[in-house]
Amino acid sequence: MHDPARVLADMGLALPPVPTPLGAYVPALAEGDLVHTSGMLPVRDGLVAFTGRVGAERTPSEGAEAARLCALNAVAALASVLGGPEGLIRVQRIVRVTGHVCSAPDFLDQPTVVDGASAWLAAVFGERGRHTRLALGAYVLPRNATVELALVARIAP
Amino acid sequence: MHDPARVLADMGLALPPVPTPLGAYVPALAEGDLVHTSGMLPVRDGLVAFTGRVGAERTPSEGAEAARLCALNAVAALASVLGGPEGLIRVQRIVRVTGHVCSAPDFLDQPTVVDGASAWLAAVFGERGRHTRLALGAYVLPRNATVELALVARIAP
Amino acid sequence: MHDPARVLADMGLALPPVPTPLGAYVPALAEGDLVHTSGMLPVRDGLVAFTGRVGAERTPSEGAEAARLCALNAVAALASVLGGPEGLIRVQRIVRVTGHVCSAPDFLDQPTVVDGASAWLAAVFGERGRHTRLALGAYVLPRNATVELALVARIAP
Repeated sequence: MHDPARVLADMGLALPPVPTPLGAYVPALAEGDLVHTSGMLPVRDGLVAFTGRVGAERTPSEGAEAARLCALNAVAALASVLGGPEGLIRVQRIVRVTGHVCSAPDFLDQPTVVDGASAWLAAVFGERGRHTRLALGAYVLPRNATVELALVARIAP
Repeated sequence: MHDPARVLADMGLALPPVPTPLGAYVPALAEGDLVHTSGMLPVRDGLVAFTGRVGAERTPSEGAEAARLCALNAVAALASVLGGPEGLIRVQRIVRVTGHVCSAPDFLDQPTVVDGASAWLAAVFGERGRHTRLALGAYVLPRNATVELALVARIAP
Repeated sequence: MHDPARVLADMGLALPPVPTPLGAYVPALAEGDLVHTSGMLPVRDGLVAFTGRVGAERTPSEGAEAARLCALNAVAALASVLGGPEGLIRVQRIVRVTGHVCSAPDFLDQPTVVDGASAWLAAVFGERGRHTRLALGAYVLPRNATVELALVARIAP
């Protein structure tokens, strides 16, 4: 049995505290057999760790790191509504990832940036982490974040 | 029991007519235990009441008003597939709000704008109105609208 | 009984091969009673057939053609997780279409562009093809694509 909590431990990763919402909403919500997360920014220790456009102030590789950090925050939010990291074993599938990449107008490789999140989710969740995805170029994101990313997951009843 | 129709009445708000779709789609759809709404513009009396970019032609406070108007239209669409305002009592949860804010390139506070919708939804639906959310900066929106906003809700069987 | 496979045959359309994902994700996923597709680009024979902004390098009518091509790819992806074109008869409803249109800053008619997809889906799926929709203006899309479009469908158990 693939156990995401064990994979995270093997990676030496502890789930961070769930980022504080920037308004009147919640980080994640379990309703029926779906969990939605809010759009996550590349926040670390309460600060947006990656700002600026990929293709201008940021390299694609920094963008991918930002996307992975967003995914880490999204998984922390997911775990928070499943009773902690051990609850991640109830994830049957990461269904959908939406990744918005703040982009220079001539930067056209959003897929490589969002892959920072996708590849990491596949590593953590195994086959259950293989999701559908939208990778989009954003004009501007909250707090000048380089990436904003949200998840939908299906949960075992 | 929190009754959204009563809250709306107490606010002195009648649900507006559902905005006419701008093409071959429907304003809202109930399928299984979910209702999706289409992207709603800040339409009032058939006209887009807020146009232009926040941080340029529009203040954040006008943007928040636009977001609230989008949410009002989204709730009207929701009610239209639940048999009218009284049907809103079947909403178990507003699951997801996606808010796109037409932004100047240096405007970075989309969360405050979309909060115009989020806070209003929490007022109307109470605990059941607390949702997950994406707040995004848009380059351009249909009809030069300041905000476009869509909802997903979960409905009692 | 409305049979999408027959409609496609009557249109003289064969479903194309599902476009190869641009990273660590899957083109479509059936989970529970929902199928999600990834964001589809206007790919034909492995190449992005429509690039550039509507309102600048592309006319609205070319944009609509691009959107229809995205929808064709999305339906191919849908069919691929339903056992082929005949499996499309299990689609109870196209629930949600999200269309991102790479736009010049003064191009405000994204709905007409995305209608290239919406009208075609209604033709293929009949009443079951009438969906909710977001039409958005994008700053930049992967591979300089003119449109990116994703679907969510509900499937008969």
